[in-house]
Amino acid sequence: MTQINIAIAGYGNLGRGAEAAIQQSPDMRLVAVFSRRDPASVELLDSSVPVHAMADIEQFQNDIDVLILCGGSKSDLPEQGPDLAGMFNIVDSFDTHAKIPEYFAALDQPAQAAGKVALLSVGWDPGLFSLNRLFGEAILPQGETYTFWGKGLSQGHSDAVRRVAGVKSGVQYTLPSEPAMARVRNGELPQLTTREKHTRECFIVLEDGADADTVRNTIVTMPDYFADYDTTVNFIDQHTFAEQHSSMPHGGFVIRSGESGSDNTKQVLEFSLKLGSNPEFTSSVLVAYARAVYKLSQAGETGAKTVFDVAPGLLSPKTPAQLRKEML
Amino acid sequence: MTQINIAIAGYGNLGRGAEAAIQQSPDMRLVAVFSRRDPASVELLDSSVPVHAMADIEQFQNDIDVLILCGGSKSDLPEQGPDLAGMFNIVDSFDTHAKIPEYFAALDQPAQAAGKVALLSVGWDPGLFSLNRLFGEAILPQGETYTFWGKGLSQGHSDAVRRVAGVKSGVQYTLPSEPAMARVRNGELPQLTTREKHTRECFIVLEDGADADTVRNTIVTMPDYFADYDTTVNFIDQHTFAEQHSSMPHGGFVIRSGESGSDNTKQVLEFSLKLGSNPEFTSSVLVAYARAVYKLSQAGETGAKTVFDVAPGLLSPKTPAQLRKEML
Repeated sequence: MTQINIAIAGYGNLGRGAEAAIQQSPDMRLVAVFSRRDPASVELLDSSVPVHAMADIEQFQNDIDVLILCGGSKSDLPEQGPDLAGMFNIVDSFDTHAKIPEYFAALDQPAQAAGKVALLSVGWDPGLFSLNRLFGEAILPQGETYTFWGKGLSQGHSDAVRRVAGVKSGVQYTLPSEPAMARVRNGELPQLTTREKHTRECFIVLEDGADADTVRNTIVTMPDYFADYDTTVNFIDQHTFAEQHSSMPHGGFVIRSGESGSDNTKQVLEFSLKLGSNPEFTSSVLVAYARAVYKLSQAGETGAKTVFDVAPGLLSPKTPAQLRKEML
Repeated sequence: MTQINIAIAGYGNLGRGAEAAIQQSPDMRLVAVFSRRDPASVELLDSSVPVHAMADIEQFQNDIDVLILCGGSKSDLPEQGPDLAGMFNIVDSFDTHAKIPEYFAALDQPAQAAGKVALLSVGWDPGLFSLNRLFGEAILPQGETYTFWGKGLSQGHSDAVRRVAGVKSGVQYTLPSEPAMARVRNGELPQLTTREKHTRECFIVLEDGADADTVRNTIVTMPDYFADYDTTVNFIDQHTFAEQHSSMPHGGFVIRSGESGSDNTKQVLEFSLKLGSNPEFTSSVLVAYARAVYKLSQAGETGAKTVFDVAPGLLSPKTPAQLRKEML
């Protein structure tokens, strides 16, 4: 089998997940990891894979079929993406929903000019959830789409509680409201407020001498983050925190409730994820779409793309004939 | 807006559902229905749409952008499909899984020769369920995929119970086993037997003088259909039957349970459908994919295709830029 030569740019949780996902993919080979840290300090799962300085990446243009960008959406990708899209076929998980059109344009121009494919915003939301929102709306145009998140650790909200004075350690989980989901699944097409869709739950370790009520009150009234939600704050000790709150679970639900036919028959589609590790799953999606990027590039495609532009068969290592026989 | 000119071949439950779905799609216009029955006897939802004899269909080659085939997979489609694929862009719901490769080949040749697109096996299984099986396997290559059907009315099994001596009216529902689904969702990767995955439930109206025990025993021991399942047989009166068992609900679940990362983290994807009407939903899927067929044909594509070959964005009436902005 000819293997696809993959490289990873950025080696945090996402990069490590991508390396593990590539190890599960016999049709791929990880040829290099690039990091802004000192390469000697980066420890991969497979120590035989070379680590190079990000600054040297352009020397490797002939060695890499697809480069997986594993940086963050806030500052890494807006800077790296447009640069790298002019040198490599790339795939990334850019997830700042409001800035996707702008980022798309910033990748499209260099990718077109270089004859490369740049696939952005791959993961689960944006990504698989987006696909399910699209399928739901296209198939049942009369209806409503509901996205619920959780139970999951929210990085941004966890950062926010950790900035509260008196908090030593803290995490925040978003929980979908079960009664709200039940109404949606039942085809009631409810109008749901922010407060009705999700609740928030915090687990906090206090600093010595900090006042629990003050901390709780600061959290639950925090504008933008918590004021619009019903928030529960639990105080625990450092040992329990380390033992029970160190993984990064997440997940959620996309539900399309619609009506078909001349009698307005109720039809409900639901897609859900229950993820033991959010970054590992995102990187598993990235790796499957890296395969699609390779095939698109081989077929002569160029420019920026999203999951909406990718025929699902391209994600699989199987041939179209195999897929028809085994999976249709 | 330029409307896509759609026609329907075959006007049973599926054809009627397709007409209703087209009425929900402002970018489409139903220009004709073709039937093997006397056209004058076919009553559409919209009586302004002309009904023509199937035998005359080739006269309409210049008037139709996409023809939706609404015949059955057993005898209609294998005969009509290859003929019509040489004249029109077509989409159908061929669902005899084992014969898909053969049927694909039978459509591909005439479609290629005529420069048309022939999209086969569209619906929910094959169709949306197939896509979710593919996504699950491609994203989490280490894992197992489980498909559960129901709660749903099974046409084939209902026909089988109605052939039993002493049965006046009868329906059969397939039910997914909740304990089996719970084990799968929990990431246990169970090996499940046929009997463990689904149960079957029949509602029977007896003919006058028929013996309930004899009928029940004939049903539950019927080879191929019921012998491998736990089957419950309920006897009801004709009035209850008419009132409670005349719709065609269906649905089901595709669950991928896999492991990612170096620590084998559990990750679960689930797609499910709860359908008030099986044929209406299938035809809603057909109509969305008819839009994709039109766009593929406009882009110069030809030959047989499946849902695996269709980029999801093509299903939507929205532009790629709109989709990126509103749905990603």
